[in-house]
Parts: sequence; structure tokens; C-alpha cells
Amino acid sequence: MFLLHPTLERDTVEIARLKLCRVLLMRDCTYPWLILVPERENLRDLDDLSPDDRALAMVEITQVSKTMKELFHPDKMNVAALGNVVEQLHIHVIARFKEDLAWPKPVWGALPPKDYENAERNALATRIALALKPL
Amino acid sequence: MFLLHPTLERDTVEIARLKLCRVLLMRDCTYPWLILVPERENLRDLDDLSPDDRALAMVEITQVSKTMKELFHPDKMNVAALGNVVEQLHIHVIARFKEDLAWPKPVWGALPPKDYENAERNALATRIALALKPL
Repeated sequence: MFLLHPTLERDTVEIARLKLCRVLLMRDCTYPWLILVPERENLRDLDDLSPDDRALAMVEITQVSKTMKELFHPDKMNVAALGNVVEQLHIHVIARFKEDLAWPKPVWGALPPKDYENAERNALATRIALALKPL
Repeated sequence: MFLLHPTLERDTVEIARLKLCRVLLMRDCTYPWLILVPERENLRDLDDLSPDDRALAMVEITQVSKTMKELFHPDKMNVAALGNVVEQLHIHVIARFKEDLAWPKPVWGALPPKDYENAERNALATRIALALKPL
């Protein structure tokens, strides 16, 4: 049975469930930062996915990335599967701006996470959920 | 016409050309660190790839990642398309170890790059090229 890693559970709120991935919003208002978690057990690396799931992951990464471009008009999208700390396979999809506080550095460890206000977080999660449409 | 970005040209050596991507070895002996560059013009983000190329990119990322696991037995693979500095679409595929000097942090900016000795770099590039086999 798939269970979300407790660290991801703590640091995010759920936005949507796609065919393969759960889409999560990071509790960090510094950048629009989503995380995709394939709902499969015992995966660590991207290449641990089955061929079908791997193709689906790429479709969903693209869907989420294009949606974020439409909503936020970033200068760059950052997509990464790192997982050195949280071992459950998860894929970061982050909208980056030349004006964001970490630019041009990667976001991990750059700044302490700053959560949204509750109402703001809920509104953003709803806005992204509504905008996520199949390719 | 596809031209490799001069920064990637300077910081890497070519290992192989797959169907979509050029496979490059970073001149940094701190970690086994490869970069895949889709040989297409004017791409910045992963989602800029056409649907066919996107699927192919995922196949080649997987091929390279599995090859690195076989060769190096890392604790974790890191896969990332960032590109905040070098705007040409390129995908990092890095073998990480709990004993590497940046662990568990991401590699970017963690340590100054340390090039291989020429003979060592050539031997490693050849070893990886020979190990890269289609899935």
C-alpha cells in the first residue's frame, strides 16, 4: 500500500491526484514549488519506475510544468528527482524567477522555508488544481 | 543546427551520442556526473520537448541512470533539469554516495569542480561509453 513519506506529508499540502502521481504544494511561499509523488511502493530513483509508469511520469511532469508556466509566467522551470534526504521517490517541479531570492542557485538549502498564510495557501492550491488539465 | 552551449563544451567531455541526447562527462571527479543534452535547437525546459522527444528523453535518462548504477553502485541517483545559468536544456544524471563530500546536499555550488587527470578521464569516458547499452 502506498503511504506518503511523513516528511512530505508535513511539508506539503495535497493539490490533486493524477493517474500516477500525487501533486503536492510545498509550504514555502518563496517560489511556486510543487512535488509529484508516484503512488507506488518502494521506489527511490526515477529509473525504478516501470516503463509504463516512467512514460506516465514524464507526461505528468510536463502537464504540471506547463500548468505552472501558464499560471506564473516564470523565467525557468526546475525539475529534479534528488531524494538524498527523503528516500521516497518524489519529483520537484519549481517555477523560478530572476527576482526570486535564491536565483540563479537551486532552491534546496538556499533559504529557510516560509509557509503561506492558510487562506493564501488554500486559494493557491485550488487555483493550481483547477488549472491542471490533461495534455 | 544544434550547437552545444560553450559552457557545457568547456566543462565536459563527450562520451556518446544516443538517439536524442549527447552524453557528456563533467570535468569533476568528486562524483560520477553525466549531462544529457537533447540535440535540438532552442530548448530551455523539459516541457519544451515534443511529445516524442520527451518520451525518448525519459528512455535515455533511464538508460544512463541504470548504467551508472551498474558501474558505480551509488547510494542514490540525482536527476535534474535546472538550467538557471546555462540556458540550453540539459539534464544532470549524477551518482551520489553517502561518503561523497557534498552528501546529502545537492551538488550544484557545493564544492569547486576538480577535474580528472587526463588519462583517468579518458578511461572513465570509455568505460561508460562501452557500458551504455539500449534498454
